[in-house]
Amino acid sequence: MAGGDDLKLLGAWPSPFVTRVKLALALKGLSYEDVEEDLYKKSELLLKSNPVHKKIPVLIHNGAPVCESMIIVQYIDEVFAGTGPSLLPADPYERAVARFWVPYVDDKLVAPWRQWLRGKTEEEKSEGKKQAFAAVEVLEGALRECSKGGGFFGGDSVGLVDVALGGVLSWMKVTEVLSGDKIFDAAKTPLLAAWVERFSGLDAAMAALPDVGRLLEFAKAREAAAAAGSLSDSRD
Amino acid sequence: MAGGDDLKLLGAWPSPFVTRVKLALALKGLSYEDVEEDLYKKSELLLKSNPVHKKIPVLIHNGAPVCESMIIVQYIDEVFAGTGPSLLPADPYERAVARFWVPYVDDKLVAPWRQWLRGKTEEEKSEGKKQAFAAVEVLEGALRECSKGGGFFGGDSVGLVDVALGGVLSWMKVTEVLSGDKIFDAAKTPLLAAWVERFSGLDAAMAALPDVGRLLEFAKAREAAAAAGSLSDSRD
Repeated sequence: MAGGDDLKLLGAWPSPFVTRVKLALALKGLSYEDVEEDLYKKSELLLKSNPVHKKIPVLIHNGAPVCESMIIVQYIDEVFAGTGPSLLPADPYERAVARFWVPYVDDKLVAPWRQWLRGKTEEEKSEGKKQAFAAVEVLEGALRECSKGGGFFGGDSVGLVDVALGGVLSWMKVTEVLSGDKIFDAAKTPLLAAWVERFSGLDAAMAALPDVGRLLEFAKAREAAAAAGSLSDSRD
Repeated sequence: MAGGDDLKLLGAWPSPFVTRVKLALALKGLSYEDVEEDLYKKSELLLKSNPVHKKIPVLIHNGAPVCESMIIVQYIDEVFAGTGPSLLPADPYERAVARFWVPYVDDKLVAPWRQWLRGKTEEEKSEGKKQAFAAVEVLEGALRECSKGGGFFGGDSVGLVDVALGGVLSWMKVTEVLSGDKIFDAAKTPLLAAWVERFSGLDAAMAALPDVGRLLEFAKAREAAAAAGSLSDSRD
């Protein structure tokens, strides 16, 4: 860590968005204070630091808050440009391509995946699953195009899109267990399946990604709570 | 324009997203070929240039396509860094703040505004309007914070958030006429109301923003077509 830099991450360990920030911090080799928020009783610091969305993650750097996972990741990349690998390429065109795929991951994979897991009806869940699988196929093509024979969306090393997708990786593995469906199937999307193995083996991923077993227990407990909650209006 | 640069914009004149790109090009003083797409019969060039979303705007720079309005704007800012004003500040923290407000404009103002104009029920329209007005109030605070006494979100000069919001300005004025509601009300949001006047007077805005009268006719014709279309399933 650069001398005098004070980094505090307001997060919650199961959040894939928080995981993205932890990945960026780990890739840059930065140490930070990891503050676990109670999302049912958010801290004054969180509410004050992100008054607009009141959401995690927030990175507080020398007292100044930065919000929204991928904006934080870019901030880390820019402010610690001299530290660790660059997450964004130097070439403006390649930067634009990377920036294109980040909202794709959020809008076309993560949002449908949430609907798949937490949809209100079977029809909603089924539609979410269908869209998520369609996105995985498109991302296989994106990986082929962006990696240029390297193993990552960033080419030979991890870039912005790797962090965006890598942040949700533990959740995807949990979803595979819960659903019995193979999301990253070597037969259908061989490049992505190899990417999953390669990414999971990175030191930064091992440091930042939530443990799949622990996350599976969390997901099961949440499912059970949601099922119980459906009998009552008292839950938020 | 830098020597040898070939810029072609695939767009449609009423699109606020295309307007953003035209604003960025005008602010940088860049000339380009303005290609008007028929959105009911998209060109092969558009489908080939944006195979993922198949949407305008697309900027084709020396044959290479860049998609998504605000990614294009950042691309223009980076690749023509030596030309015209910088749309993003040099300071990483200020860049993160600007990047924070861009999706806010899209998600909290533009999306509800579309629902207000084109919602399927009166309830949907009313909810859209309510959310759009709430966003305008938040943006008043953002302008106060970001402008630091200058007249723009970018401070003394136009920045990324000004372009994001400026792109929808003609549509907001049309909506004021159609609805009879004052969106940027000097009594409620004085800074934004002054910003509207200031922004509208910029050479780049006068060059890039669609004429409000023409846009009003377009909006009325689309409303009429939608009303007619509601009697038939044959429209897309």
